[in-house]
Amino acid sequence: MLSSEISKAGFFPGARFFVKSRVYYSVILALFMFSFSSILPVSLRADQPGALNLNLMPYPARVNLTGGEFRLTEKFYVGGHVKPDHRVFKAACRFMSRLAARTGLFFEQDYLAGQPVNDQTVFLYHFERPGQLVPGEDESYLLEINPEKIELKAKTDLGLLHGLETLLQVLSADSAGYYFPCLQIEDSPRFTWRGLLIDSSRHFMPVEVIKRNLLAMSAVKLNVLHWHLSDDQGFRVESKSFPRLHQLGSDGLYYRQAEIIDIIQLASDLGIRVVPEFDLPGHSTSWLVAYPEYGSLPGPYQLERKFGVSSPVFNPAEEKTYKFFDRFLKEMTFLFPDPYFHLGGDEVEPKHWKENPEIQKFMKKNKISDEAGLQAYFNRRLLQLLTKYHKKMIGWDEIYQPGLPKNIVIQSWRGQQALVDGAKKGYQGILSNGYYIDLVESAERHYLNDPLPSDSLLTPEEKKLILGGEATMWAELVTPETVDSRLWPRSAAIAERFWSPKEIRDVDDMYKRLRIISLSLEENGINHLKNQPMMLRRLAQSYEIGGLEVLARVAEPVKGYARHSQGKTYNSLAPLTRFVDACFPESLEARDFRQKVEKFIGNRDLRQAEEIKGCFRLWQENHQKIVRLANFSPILKETVPLSASLLTLSQIGVEAVDLLMKGKPAEPSWLEEKFKQLEEARKSVAECQLAIWPGVKALLDCLKK
Amino acid sequence: MLSSEISKAGFFPGARFFVKSRVYYSVILALFMFSFSSILPVSLRADQPGALNLNLMPYPARVNLTGGEFRLTEKFYVGGHVKPDHRVFKAACRFMSRLAARTGLFFEQDYLAGQPVNDQTVFLYHFERPGQLVPGEDESYLLEINPEKIELKAKTDLGLLHGLETLLQVLSADSAGYYFPCLQIEDSPRFTWRGLLIDSSRHFMPVEVIKRNLLAMSAVKLNVLHWHLSDDQGFRVESKSFPRLHQLGSDGLYYRQAEIIDIIQLASDLGIRVVPEFDLPGHSTSWLVAYPEYGSLPGPYQLERKFGVSSPVFNPAEEKTYKFFDRFLKEMTFLFPDPYFHLGGDEVEPKHWKENPEIQKFMKKNKISDEAGLQAYFNRRLLQLLTKYHKKMIGWDEIYQPGLPKNIVIQSWRGQQALVDGAKKGYQGILSNGYYIDLVESAERHYLNDPLPSDSLLTPEEKKLILGGEATMWAELVTPETVDSRLWPRSAAIAERFWSPKEIRDVDDMYKRLRIISLSLEENGINHLKNQPMMLRRLAQSYEIGGLEVLARVAEPVKGYARHSQGKTYNSLAPLTRFVDACFPESLEARDFRQKVEKFIGNRDLRQAEEIKGCFRLWQENHQKIVRLANFSPILKETVPLSASLLTLSQIGVEAVDLLMKGKPAEPSWLEEKFKQLEEARKSVAECQLAIWPGVKALLDCLKK
Repeated sequence: MLSSEISKAGFFPGARFFVKSRVYYSVILALFMFSFSSILPVSLRADQPGALNLNLMPYPARVNLTGGEFRLTEKFYVGGHVKPDHRVFKAACRFMSRLAARTGLFFEQDYLAGQPVNDQTVFLYHFERPGQLVPGEDESYLLEINPEKIELKAKTDLGLLHGLETLLQVLSADSAGYYFPCLQIEDSPRFTWRGLLIDSSRHFMPVEVIKRNLLAMSAVKLNVLHWHLSDDQGFRVESKSFPRLHQLGSDGLYYRQAEIIDIIQLASDLGIRVVPEFDLPGHSTSWLVAYPEYGSLPGPYQLERKFGVSSPVFNPAEEKTYKFFDRFLKEMTFLFPDPYFHLGGDEVEPKHWKENPEIQKFMKKNKISDEAGLQAYFNRRLLQLLTKYHKKMIGWDEIYQPGLPKNIVIQSWRGQQALVDGAKKGYQGILSNGYYIDLVESAERHYLNDPLPSDSLLTPEEKKLILGGEATMWAELVTPETVDSRLWPRSAAIAERFWSPKEIRDVDDMYKRLRIISLSLEENGINHLKNQPMMLRRLAQSYEIGGLEVLARVAEPVKGYARHSQGKTYNSLAPLTRFVDACFPESLEARDFRQKVEKFIGNRDLRQAEEIKGCFRLWQENHQKIVRLANFSPILKETVPLSASLLTLSQIGVEAVDLLMKGKPAEPSWLEEKFKQLEEARKSVAECQLAIWPGVKALLDCLKK
Repeated sequence: MLSSEISKAGFFPGARFFVKSRVYYSVILALFMFSFSSILPVSLRADQPGALNLNLMPYPARVNLTGGEFRLTEKFYVGGHVKPDHRVFKAACRFMSRLAARTGLFFEQDYLAGQPVNDQTVFLYHFERPGQLVPGEDESYLLEINPEKIELKAKTDLGLLHGLETLLQVLSADSAGYYFPCLQIEDSPRFTWRGLLIDSSRHFMPVEVIKRNLLAMSAVKLNVLHWHLSDDQGFRVESKSFPRLHQLGSDGLYYRQAEIIDIIQLASDLGIRVVPEFDLPGHSTSWLVAYPEYGSLPGPYQLERKFGVSSPVFNPAEEKTYKFFDRFLKEMTFLFPDPYFHLGGDEVEPKHWKENPEIQKFMKKNKISDEAGLQAYFNRRLLQLLTKYHKKMIGWDEIYQPGLPKNIVIQSWRGQQALVDGAKKGYQGILSNGYYIDLVESAERHYLNDPLPSDSLLTPEEKKLILGGEATMWAELVTPETVDSRLWPRSAAIAERFWSPKEIRDVDDMYKRLRIISLSLEENGINHLKNQPMMLRRLAQSYEIGGLEVLARVAEPVKGYARHSQGKTYNSLAPLTRFVDACFPESLEARDFRQKVEKFIGNRDLRQAEEIKGCFRLWQENHQKIVRLANFSPILKETVPLSASLLTLSQIGVEAVDLLMKGKPAEPSWLEEKFKQLEEARKSVAECQLAIWPGVKALLDCLKK
């Protein structure tokens, strides 16, 4: 919890209370009394986050404010009666270290030397057993903060980790110092599979990218790293059985096995499973560069630099292919301890299968009627190998076929219906459709997408088969420099969807908390905030980036796959350092602006009008700065027309506000002209769009009435 | 080169020319003609950087501007006639990738696939042989940029790497696009040993810290990473022969050997030697935690959390100690390929030697008269082992003793005289005294410190024994989060001292170029600039950090070792996240301010007076912001009196400027009062000092006259 924000939001009397139908007890009265006395036995509880103004994300299942606070001092000692396992010990160290970093307190406890319980132990934890990193494991916890003592209890150490993150989120401050508000939290996840896919193939993501994102994942209680390790553009794992895979298939950019072991260890320390994905039989050019003999055509193959679906594909008709995979999977199933192993299976292009007469002959001989059937055959063979190595299979929609064992998991990128169909047939599934964060959509859109919508027609038994979901960070258009800004903070909203009760859906409140969580993610090394000015400095080749910042705050990259059709042909070497790359996927400033406009439209308040006009003036005056910068930085030339559109929108906006304030109707010819300009300013420029556009349109629309 | 800065500085007519005694040709005329025609055969050359306004650092030995420019397009192809070795190939890839990142150009060349020469090759490199990573290797290069072609020639690939960095530094831009100015550069280093010490013991520095700093080192042509790998607070290398060293001596924070191999590989790719240091026989508590049997007292030992010189020390009187080191050095001399191996040897505390009667007996028996003699004995024994493993020894001042072989290197932390004494006796030396960047002194101070000052009394032969110098980044008060801001940009000024001709000493010009280089170091992942706002956000727990930024820009950490005597007792767990940690070692804003004041004192110009008063007003108004932030962020409370001092200084300043403008003498009583306030505001607060203090004092002093 961020103290200044808390204070601004008004934790105690004077706060704006978002009283939903299910807020219990007499909230206002209780709060009023709190401020005078903390010995009153009343308590305050809410099932909606807005009610308590606690900046928790994901929001816990049950929160109960009990009044008073636990004051933090340098004598703060943490300890547990149980012998701490590696996970708890390291987590407690990280916890203390983050607490020290935020507060500047020089804690007396030598926390690196372990946490024995003694007289000074004021924060006590208990757990029954080490958690297993498998779906369905108990991750619940109970957190109780009293004025003298904090207690955290969990069945497993996994629950304990979640409780520690929650505790850090409620750290508060006032002029007297730091404190934790007294409360009881009872919490457990809605879904057991709360994943994030990171694609290390299209652009290689060095070890530190993965590590800092594991830390961030654990901060928002995500528990599966789905690691996309091979694709046409690169094979990223050191293989001892087939070293040419990483030697020829990676441009030298791959993970050593020692690094993978470290990453899996860190993930385990954080209670996160690591599910590797080797995408097969398509998306496999990088393998065939090294081993063309397993391809469907003779080759030679070259590493793919372009993006999209390409033709190279493994040859499912040859026995040697399966011998290769047997040895390969033997090595990789040992390296990755998770019970699940992801074989991809999406977007298989049948072209080479059709062009190879031997493969066609094989199909005929084995009564395989089409290429989908051939892929099914391939999958069955690989499934046998996985079973031999004690792994369960997971794959994308396309892997589904009748007769598969019921312990597989289907991951849906195509849509919710696939999951429903699967569940009806008894298959487990996780949802990724709607969580494609590479498409740079709004957090709201992902947040309201539910793996198990309330109108679901599944039976309670079938519902249990929906294990959760995964956000997907495909890496065609991100680099280690920009990937954090695409991942965060939006993934935190998705994490709340996966963890919190399904009734938690208040979008405004989510955004309020998201801003705070976004700030705290910097603690985990996430560089989404700090890399933007750095990128703008490089663009401007100057320290003076005020003008660029103003523009970047209201611009967003074009959505979906649109960047691929705006004139530039991206490949894996293309620079991702332009203005569009420095823009955040979602402009929170534009969201604020839209809300201001809506408020103004509702009340026509003079102060509100001035505030909106203030924004417009800033944007108008900004244009000359952009023009000046672009004069000396050719890379910024493309932003000039974008800035010009912002100027146009601002001019329209000022006039519209003035007319609305005067209460005069607009001339039809004027309106027509302005709507024309508005449409013109809607066009994407430099692969960006202006996120304040809808706000300006709303003003004009108002004049039409 | 940073285009906007270039343009502002005035590359062509209108530029301020810093015409020193050794600028050749008729500069003004030539420049004037340049702007109209590039076919004129005149050329422009200068031995002082200010003359050409090229933002090069370190400044090359000889630069010759020949007029015109090479225009950069997407058809830019790089290639060499020689088969590129791993170093050149990777360097060319990095070069292209950085060029693409800065310019946003989508180069046609698939640079990851190698650089064959073809018709389109417009940038051609040549070198004769791979360079050896040893002192004295040829690192010279010749760079020639013509309108149609760029040529880079070197004896070794090491020279080539330097040339590529120089080429990136001259990248320019105008409204027509990016270009390289036509020129000839002939360059070679003044010193062969241009080092940077990074201490990974006091605070562990993860792999990525080392890697990004290697990249930054290569950008400014530093060529030795001196890696301080063990000390009382931690033993940081995985040892296969003695695994308890890293297991018990590191809190789990150590480098795997695979990581060390990767780091050495990267360093080699960048032309950088890696000299490991294991500090012995003192500074060795972390070893003795694992192996108390080699200590001078029985132990047990505990990892040291405090800083300073501690008592644990190896037992030089026992034969088993040398058996231990034999095996240890066998492993480590194999792991680190550099011909030199650093054994530390500084600050040996003789207490335990005195307390151990066996050791005293040993000394008597071997006619060792004192503890210095005992250390000498230990060193001789270890030197024998190093020689056995084909390494040359390097150590701090204290290792010197008569009779050592002449191939050792003495690194002086105590002072220049030690080097002179050594050289007089025929010993090679490098200078670190005066380059202790952990002491947060100004760049100027380090810059003017010369390993071989012009008044040196050494003979030419003796001078050759001074190999160079090393900046030292001791890590008591830095973490991975802050270390870059202590290292950079000041190390770039030191790098220039080690590389450039000794006549290059213009401090103002150095600072002008340092700002530009500082910005470009972000390209190498150096986070000195971007981490400051991040740290301020954490301090404020808010996005609103304007007030803190204003204060941070004029505050500096107290100098030298003063932070250890300001009330807080630092240890290796203490938070380094306070305001003082977010401040840069040197306030460039305060430097500007002082220059403005000096100018004003000289001319009493009204515009200048207004500018200075503008600064004061900003600082005055800032105080309320700090007070407000500190109300909700207890960690900021300590900054309130610092900000109050800034307020006081600003009030004094405004009054002083007004009096000076009026030309009236100041009342003696007023002056007395103000000088008292001035002294009060000089005191360090929150371990910081206000860097604008001297500027304000200069104004008051003026009124005294």
